[in-house]
Amino acid sequence: MAQADLVLLGGTVVTMDGAGNVYTPGAVAVSGNSIVAVGPEREVVREYQGAEELTCSGCAVIPGLINGHTHAPMTLLRGLANDLRLDVWLVGYMMPAEREFVRPDFCWLGTQLACAEMIQSGVTCFGDMYYFEETVADSAAQAGMRAVCAQSILKFATPDAGSYDQALELTRDFVTRWKGHELITPAVGPHAAYTSTVEMLQDCAQLALAEDVPIHIHIAETAEEVARQRAEYGMPVVPWVKKQGLFGARVTAAHCVHLDEGELYTLLHHDVGVVHSPTSNLKLASGFAPVTRMLELGIPVGIGTDGSASNNDLDILEETRLAALLAKGITGDPTAVSAQQALEMATTMGARALGLDQITGSIEIGKRADLAVIDLNTVHLTPRFDDTASSIYALIVYGAKSADILHVLCHGRWLMRDRQVLTVDTEYARREAQRVANKVSSFIVAREESILSKLLALSDVSQGRAFEVQVKVQLSADDLSSVEDAIESGLLAVVRSSVRRQYDAYLILDDVDHSRIRYREDEVLSSDGEHVESVEYRLTLTGSIREREYDNLVILSQSRYDAPATHSLRFYKEYFDPAQTVEVSKRRRRYHIRFGGTAFALNIDQIIQPSWSTHFLEIKSRTWSSQDAERKAALIGELLHSLALTHMQPVKEEYPDLVLGRVVGAPDSRNES
Amino acid sequence: MAQADLVLLGGTVVTMDGAGNVYTPGAVAVSGNSIVAVGPEREVVREYQGAEELTCSGCAVIPGLINGHTHAPMTLLRGLANDLRLDVWLVGYMMPAEREFVRPDFCWLGTQLACAEMIQSGVTCFGDMYYFEETVADSAAQAGMRAVCAQSILKFATPDAGSYDQALELTRDFVTRWKGHELITPAVGPHAAYTSTVEMLQDCAQLALAEDVPIHIHIAETAEEVARQRAEYGMPVVPWVKKQGLFGARVTAAHCVHLDEGELYTLLHHDVGVVHSPTSNLKLASGFAPVTRMLELGIPVGIGTDGSASNNDLDILEETRLAALLAKGITGDPTAVSAQQALEMATTMGARALGLDQITGSIEIGKRADLAVIDLNTVHLTPRFDDTASSIYALIVYGAKSADILHVLCHGRWLMRDRQVLTVDTEYARREAQRVANKVSSFIVAREESILSKLLALSDVSQGRAFEVQVKVQLSADDLSSVEDAIESGLLAVVRSSVRRQYDAYLILDDVDHSRIRYREDEVLSSDGEHVESVEYRLTLTGSIREREYDNLVILSQSRYDAPATHSLRFYKEYFDPAQTVEVSKRRRRYHIRFGGTAFALNIDQIIQPSWSTHFLEIKSRTWSSQDAERKAALIGELLHSLALTHMQPVKEEYPDLVLGRVVGAPDSRNES
Repeated sequence: MAQADLVLLGGTVVTMDGAGNVYTPGAVAVSGNSIVAVGPEREVVREYQGAEELTCSGCAVIPGLINGHTHAPMTLLRGLANDLRLDVWLVGYMMPAEREFVRPDFCWLGTQLACAEMIQSGVTCFGDMYYFEETVADSAAQAGMRAVCAQSILKFATPDAGSYDQALELTRDFVTRWKGHELITPAVGPHAAYTSTVEMLQDCAQLALAEDVPIHIHIAETAEEVARQRAEYGMPVVPWVKKQGLFGARVTAAHCVHLDEGELYTLLHHDVGVVHSPTSNLKLASGFAPVTRMLELGIPVGIGTDGSASNNDLDILEETRLAALLAKGITGDPTAVSAQQALEMATTMGARALGLDQITGSIEIGKRADLAVIDLNTVHLTPRFDDTASSIYALIVYGAKSADILHVLCHGRWLMRDRQVLTVDTEYARREAQRVANKVSSFIVAREESILSKLLALSDVSQGRAFEVQVKVQLSADDLSSVEDAIESGLLAVVRSSVRRQYDAYLILDDVDHSRIRYREDEVLSSDGEHVESVEYRLTLTGSIREREYDNLVILSQSRYDAPATHSLRFYKEYFDPAQTVEVSKRRRRYHIRFGGTAFALNIDQIIQPSWSTHFLEIKSRTWSSQDAERKAALIGELLHSLALTHMQPVKEEYPDLVLGRVVGAPDSRNES
Repeated sequence: MAQADLVLLGGTVVTMDGAGNVYTPGAVAVSGNSIVAVGPEREVVREYQGAEELTCSGCAVIPGLINGHTHAPMTLLRGLANDLRLDVWLVGYMMPAEREFVRPDFCWLGTQLACAEMIQSGVTCFGDMYYFEETVADSAAQAGMRAVCAQSILKFATPDAGSYDQALELTRDFVTRWKGHELITPAVGPHAAYTSTVEMLQDCAQLALAEDVPIHIHIAETAEEVARQRAEYGMPVVPWVKKQGLFGARVTAAHCVHLDEGELYTLLHHDVGVVHSPTSNLKLASGFAPVTRMLELGIPVGIGTDGSASNNDLDILEETRLAALLAKGITGDPTAVSAQQALEMATTMGARALGLDQITGSIEIGKRADLAVIDLNTVHLTPRFDDTASSIYALIVYGAKSADILHVLCHGRWLMRDRQVLTVDTEYARREAQRVANKVSSFIVAREESILSKLLALSDVSQGRAFEVQVKVQLSADDLSSVEDAIESGLLAVVRSSVRRQYDAYLILDDVDHSRIRYREDEVLSSDGEHVESVEYRLTLTGSIREREYDNLVILSQSRYDAPATHSLRFYKEYFDPAQTVEVSKRRRRYHIRFGGTAFALNIDQIIQPSWSTHFLEIKSRTWSSQDAERKAALIGELLHSLALTHMQPVKEEYPDLVLGRVVGAPDSRNES
């Protein structure tokens, strides 16, 4: 008789192997990190004696469950905001909190808490995507969990990278150092199509291919995402992502809610794994993923909880149950996604979706010993009908709860015994998590009391996009003429132009950020500048807007909120109760031009109030990465050169700051006109 | 300082009162069965000292949850069959198991198990509808739970009543004896519109009004139900039910999935309470109830688990979470059904829907002391954000699990302390439940191996409806002539008629029921009887079909299954492997007549094979109650009299039995032609 390190005896062993074997009573023998035997108890015990033998009578022994898509550190933001529109939730709460708090220690701690919770619900393996992903990997490995850890890459600044090229470097570094770890698979995490540029996705694909690591990406989570993608690129998300070469690598695609039949076939043909997150899709009202169709086609579909900020937990059993129930409701077919299929999604198919099916997801000889033991001796699992083949799956999927998970083993190591988590100090994690949450609370309370919430409460608010590169110079009368000549002579290729009178009132608030609400009456004038063709009223919230400087350039963060102003200036003054109000009126000639193959906005502003009669030139362009910003900076340099304006000192302040005279060299002291 | 029996201290008291008061730390004082104080801890303890004082630090104290719609005894059938079409699930599994096993002891035991499970998930009050409802009431009262117990009434035979008038008597008796019980509200339970007759619903309404007790009914659970109702009565379910006077009584309507705007207003105007059961509606693919719209209109909507045979548990917290999530997904609006609204549905609104809002559903002075204490000191509820008003609701609804319920108090009595159920012997209930389940298993296994499953596996099977009253007599040549004369002379008002040749093969099976599969080739002949106009092939399963005898009449149960026969007789013989096959061919003249204002079918059958050349007359009519059966029996007597056939001895056997000569007086021994 051979010696094993551990033999689990006496339970119902639900193997989830290809043949659907269930052994009652069954046994599993483990040596080192792997399964060496599984089968009817009498056969296994004839062959193996365990150094440790654990009796699992009245229990089910199942493969460790797989949470295919989450953002582990977000447990620290669990329940921060609920029942909100996606944009308000994301822009109003999650992004500000993340910007403020997401640091390596935050991610490590959040992952500890997440791992404790996942272990308690029978999970041994998860797919993650977040910032400072190395800390997630480190924390998961310490908790003894298997994980595919994808470092997030976005086209704009994130808590861990100022630009996508920085994020890419971070990823390369992370991947190189963690490749080959026995528990952790490092991965490349381009966040989503709508947060990527073409080059960014191509770079991600190249990196994943070169390093032979998987890609984890959000695909088609919302209808709006797909509509925007179609409007901008004339195709939906999957073909666009494919066009950038992403599917050359092994890809795990989270959500996949809004896909057409053709896109499903594309996923199938490129062996893309999908992760379905029904709770998150319901809670954020994202839609219903065509799970039944995906399964019909043979696409491997795993199950994920998504981040616990939008769930609000990491309970994979509940998620699995919901996947089975929701599919029936949506298709109108109560036979859709059976309990057995749902459990496959949470085990074998989840492993396939993450590219780990060679080592986990089922109880088979040679696979890693990733197991969970469920206590079936409860009131809510009584009685049991064992006569039909499907009854054990139904019992687990429709009946079992995370509190019924008794023991968890991963890679041959006990993570939980008798409901006690062994590899995470849960008391420490809970205490520290609460400490962080209290800080987040204070921050949010301060914010709640301030501006954005008020703005949000008023009307439909949308967030401005990413960054702009901007240069501003004051123009002498000569300068002005030469710019005007350049425009009239056709030296600058003007795409379209307009003349406006803009009456701006800046409400300067007494909050920590010295936030400003700009109330703008924007009158569009006829081409002769004589009469008003239309008026637009807008409210814009700006915070600390300067992000970085490049020589003469200023990079402005556009993380600001914008809404139609449907009330009067009087109303807003009362509503926001500003410490100070600064009024600036100007006549603006606005030109959209192309220069060096690139779009720029060019404003010639004549300040009317205060009565400086000064002219300014602003040149702006959107940017997505620091490389791109440098390229555009160089182009702006050339443009200034061609306008003969290189002698001018750039003005780095916004108009109200100039009015307040807070800065040296306010225009009234050097008015040249 | 006043004395109270119990003071709960130190927790977050979520009152669910109209003002949305939440006290942290709060306290609740209880004297006898009622709440005498609630508020901030310091205020309550200034006023009351408790004989018992329980510290609830880190816990939430909430009103006992309300499970508005369930069938408690069905816990014993939990998980018996899953992932099936509704008809197959109901007709193929639930109804046969219920017919076989549902007895008073079954219902009492099942309710014990259900109560234990509900107490564990924080429920103190439930709305029930089942058979032998008095045993449910008795079992619930013993468990110390509050319940509205509705005795089921259906137009056909049920496990506890042979007809609806019997069920009505049973209900009257139950209601009379239990009215005024401190925990139990007896109620009238007309099962659903599609299982009612006009008279039955009217009788139910009268009974409820006369006794001043509520009505509990399933309304518009499936689209098919509504379509049938429209086809048969030219209106959907709600107006039809209203027409029968049902809404004169206080009504709780379960499901309400497929209602139009007008029907919602009808519910609103008649103060009908709705109970939403999202898991059951998803699992059986019944559809999505318009919950958001109901709430908008102000209809009180509670939450119910439905029976655990279709759920598969009684976890009201999970159900509440799903109600909040599903509403968002279905409306596409993530602000739909907030956590607070969902918790209202599970408490105050649930109480209103059951007509118990004067005594339970919120923590207010004067209401009964129905409370649940939730342990918030868990990993999956960490961290907590207490700064926003909604956060405690979100924490409970999106985060808390039934395993987090720590203590439960109902009517001032402890039902659970420190997760130990005190009022139900859970070990006994579990053991006995398993014993019953094993019997059900054996029964189902025997059945699985037998006929219906095979028939179900083949094709679309529909169940025949209810009962028929039938009389059959053998006709002499003179008798035949007089019947023919009666028809030709117009004495009988013939609505329509046809001539057929029916080649029947009865496959007689070797199962416990001696089931028979009838394979029928039904040739419809031209009016001259010369050539075949159409042929229909049908399979029909009949079991022990004789239900009762009234003098000369036989009441036949039509609990039989019918399907198009798409294969050959050879195929079916092979497939069903009958012990014996009996072939009977006949020429049938079929007349649909009206007599005494009532529809009857009248068959003149000439047996061709075996070659008896005997003629038989069958007179049949559908019936729904024993009163109706008696009325029709009298009419058939008159009809026989007018045909001068009263001298004939009725034949109580079916044709194959006559062929098999199993009975005395088989026609070949008394062939008079």
